[in-house]
Amino acid sequence: MDKLCIIGVGLIGGCLALAQRQAGFRGEIVGCDRDGSALEEALALGIIDRAEVEPARAVAGADTVVVAVPVGAMEAVFAAIAPHLDPGAVITDVGSTKASVVTAARSVWSSLPPGFVPAHPIAGTEKSGVGAAFPTLFRGRKVILTPLPETSPAALERVRTLWRDTGAEVVVMPVAHHDEVLAATSHLPHLLAFTLVDTLARMDDSWEIFRYAAGGFRDFTRIASSDPVMWHDICFANREAILGVLTRLEEDLDTLRAAIDRGDGEYVKAVFQRAKRARDHFSTIFIEQP
Amino acid sequence: MDKLCIIGVGLIGGCLALAQRQAGFRGEIVGCDRDGSALEEALALGIIDRAEVEPARAVAGADTVVVAVPVGAMEAVFAAIAPHLDPGAVITDVGSTKASVVTAARSVWSSLPPGFVPAHPIAGTEKSGVGAAFPTLFRGRKVILTPLPETSPAALERVRTLWRDTGAEVVVMPVAHHDEVLAATSHLPHLLAFTLVDTLARMDDSWEIFRYAAGGFRDFTRIASSDPVMWHDICFANREAILGVLTRLEEDLDTLRAAIDRGDGEYVKAVFQRAKRARDHFSTIFIEQP
Repeated sequence: MDKLCIIGVGLIGGCLALAQRQAGFRGEIVGCDRDGSALEEALALGIIDRAEVEPARAVAGADTVVVAVPVGAMEAVFAAIAPHLDPGAVITDVGSTKASVVTAARSVWSSLPPGFVPAHPIAGTEKSGVGAAFPTLFRGRKVILTPLPETSPAALERVRTLWRDTGAEVVVMPVAHHDEVLAATSHLPHLLAFTLVDTLARMDDSWEIFRYAAGGFRDFTRIASSDPVMWHDICFANREAILGVLTRLEEDLDTLRAAIDRGDGEYVKAVFQRAKRARDHFSTIFIEQP
Repeated sequence: MDKLCIIGVGLIGGCLALAQRQAGFRGEIVGCDRDGSALEEALALGIIDRAEVEPARAVAGADTVVVAVPVGAMEAVFAAIAPHLDPGAVITDVGSTKASVVTAARSVWSSLPPGFVPAHPIAGTEKSGVGAAFPTLFRGRKVILTPLPETSPAALERVRTLWRDTGAEVVVMPVAHHDEVLAATSHLPHLLAFTLVDTLARMDDSWEIFRYAAGGFRDFTRIASSDPVMWHDICFANREAILGVLTRLEEDLDTLRAAIDRGDGEYVKAVFQRAKRARDHFSTIFIEQP
């Protein structure tokens, strides 16, 4: 890898650039964004070496192109860069949904380039923007690659190394499996957090309510500070899987409500006990960030 | 205050004892718990001066009695201590629901003692037990007092000082208002977290799911590690208020799901944007713990 082009200079793109630098990457990092102020900030912070507003100019000569834009913008970016990519370039993305990204790619390229490797670093914060970037975001986190039949082994290796260098653990799985797992552990919690905060904010005494909220509420609702546009895109990009797991959750919530209503303490206690057991187990497998 | 008796030597009782010591309280702190190992641990950690298993012996001679047991156990504790309290003793509690505690007290005392001051420190962690206690839990947190018509001004002042000494901000409000506010910001989030984790844990590939969960999921579900018995009690102690706000949330979740289903991006984006605005605002009023 000699020239790394990052399209979409936000939190993830910025963290990747910083992590690559920290890992010793000496080549050029080109940042591309339609938001000129993000580019200026990234240049000022020393996160990128060169800034380009035009995708065509940004990808010229790049051997590795990372598309780090909201999933709803992937297709437009693919279309903009496709005619200008170097023949041997590896193209990867960081989208939170993978089937939608693959569909976007297939609609741009009549036959997918062997350098195309869909990817998703499972890391982030509720903050947005390149100004919030830091080099250790991916350390100890997982990055899922969902290679396609067209993907070349060399391209897969390049992207594996790109992420391994950031301190992440790289795993490979099928597109559909990725989308189901992420619907459950990421997309659904975000929907719940957004909905809860909005429900409370629309109550008459919402100011009172937030005033007496404590640490548990703060942690529970932290993800409701995430970027609304990005999460709007994810909702529709992974609609089927999200609706599936949301329906399940709504059924379970309904059953719990009925149990509280009829005074069925055993049922309620059993749910809480199973949940605590599972959550305590999760905390033993989740590695805290350094 | 010369002799402080804490009934229920768990996280909250332990933190209160440590905070009082740190604030310079020189009198005796008596701990009472039916769990002998909790008492031993509290003695070994220097959190209490004396341990009693019998509530009758524990409250004898105490001028301030704090009942720090799950709300479902309040009535039994009130009944056990009532005949043995000093005439001028101040009795307060730390229960997360207040109407139920007042009902429990009224069923034990035919006429409520003027020293009875219902209280709720809005602080805690997902951890339980006196071993997790630390002296700064209440610093910068709110403590709500819900005095009754029978409550004497002197008792109210004593409890106000008890909590102010821990670094908390003390506020006074009616019982019903407390229960509604807490149903929204604390009880409902706990129900959602417990339900989500249980829903996912019962899915076929739950191991896979938790394996790929990240920091957002960790924060969102932290409160699902809370004590199941304590939260079971809260569910039924504040049933009406919880069912009210849960119904509202379920309706909003249903409307969001329908919007995703029919592809109504504007609706979804509006919910997320309102939620982000409210959550960002909340984070400006929430003081992080030192």
